[in-house]
Amino acid sequence: MPHLTIEYSPNLGDFPEADMALALNASVCASPEVKDESDLKTRFVRTRHFQIGTADTPRAFVHAQLRLLAGRSPKAKQDLSERIAAVLRRMAPRPDGTLVQLSVEIVDMDRPSYVKESLG
Amino acid sequence: MPHLTIEYSPNLGDFPEADMALALNASVCASPEVKDESDLKTRFVRTRHFQIGTADTPRAFVHAQLRLLAGRSPKAKQDLSERIAAVLRRMAPRPDGTLVQLSVEIVDMDRPSYVKESLG
Amino acid sequence: MPHLTIEYSPNLGDFPEADMALALNASVCASPEVKDESDLKTRFVRTRHFQIGTADTPRAFVHAQLRLLAGRSPKAKQDLSERIAAVLRRMAPRPDGTLVQLSVEIVDMDRPSYVKESLG
Repeated sequence: MPHLTIEYSPNLGDFPEADMALALNASVCASPEVKDESDLKTRFVRTRHFQIGTADTPRAFVHAQLRLLAGRSPKAKQDLSERIAAVLRRMAPRPDGTLVQLSVEIVDMDRPSYVKESLG
Repeated sequence: MPHLTIEYSPNLGDFPEADMALALNASVCASPEVKDESDLKTRFVRTRHFQIGTADTPRAFVHAQLRLLAGRSPKAKQDLSERIAAVLRRMAPRPDGTLVQLSVEIVDMDRPSYVKESLG
Repeated sequence: MPHLTIEYSPNLGDFPEADMALALNASVCASPEVKDESDLKTRFVRTRHFQIGTADTPRAFVHAQLRLLAGRSPKAKQDLSERIAAVLRRMAPRPDGTLVQLSVEIVDMDRPSYVKESLG
């Protein structure tokens, strides 16, 4: 059931979406928290206009959000967060002169009201 | 105040956004939890690159997220979730040979800090 | 660390993304809750198809979501919400004959699992 969204500002040149998706899914699916690899759904969002802070200096961001059913331990969530951060750290573009901010957020989803099924 | 977002992978052919929006809003607004039909704001997101799991087989997804002010009972949230799932189940495209995953998530929004108004 | 997303329906004409971003960041960064102006990352989402409620009348929406690390007081969150609403109220387009709904939501992010760093 995990949903992973990678959002990035459009000033990062050619963002390696396909390669990063493979690396992210390999890393996250290797966690004992993911029972079935097919549960992890990763997608990318390239933002429209963005503005970081108020200073007029070159800045960019990559933000990952992983949503998974509530009930994981704090330690398990930190491990998942670090699995994602490690991939972003390695693969995110770093244009010269631009400060790139990286962030990873883990979100608990409400379990009793969650619906999941496959359409045959 | 409910916000409904339908996100889908781009390998689902012609996704019936307009028809599905009408069906979703009719179904959700018929819930006793929605006091005023004009409160429900539904929108669609067609993803950029996506990757489901690690296996190399044809997969797709449709994910619905309904955000509403905190305070609903678990039963009310399950009912809302099922109202949405029923529409997706009926109307989501099912391309031959592609496994389509459907999911519905209900999110509680923080009530005291929520602002809502109409611009006259 | 705050993440601000402004989502709007596409029937609002020329939406002043750049000017609004500057005004939002100035207003939110002036809050004592924001320690470093460079922490605030604001971006815009122009929706694809949308449907508000079930009635066939001209409607539009602008929805702001601010995600920040958990731990702020209810009062601090209300203040942040109002800082954002004040800007939207002043700058959101109001096409003749269209009812524009404005909403602002504050979301607590899980602190222990949050990762944030700069890529040098």
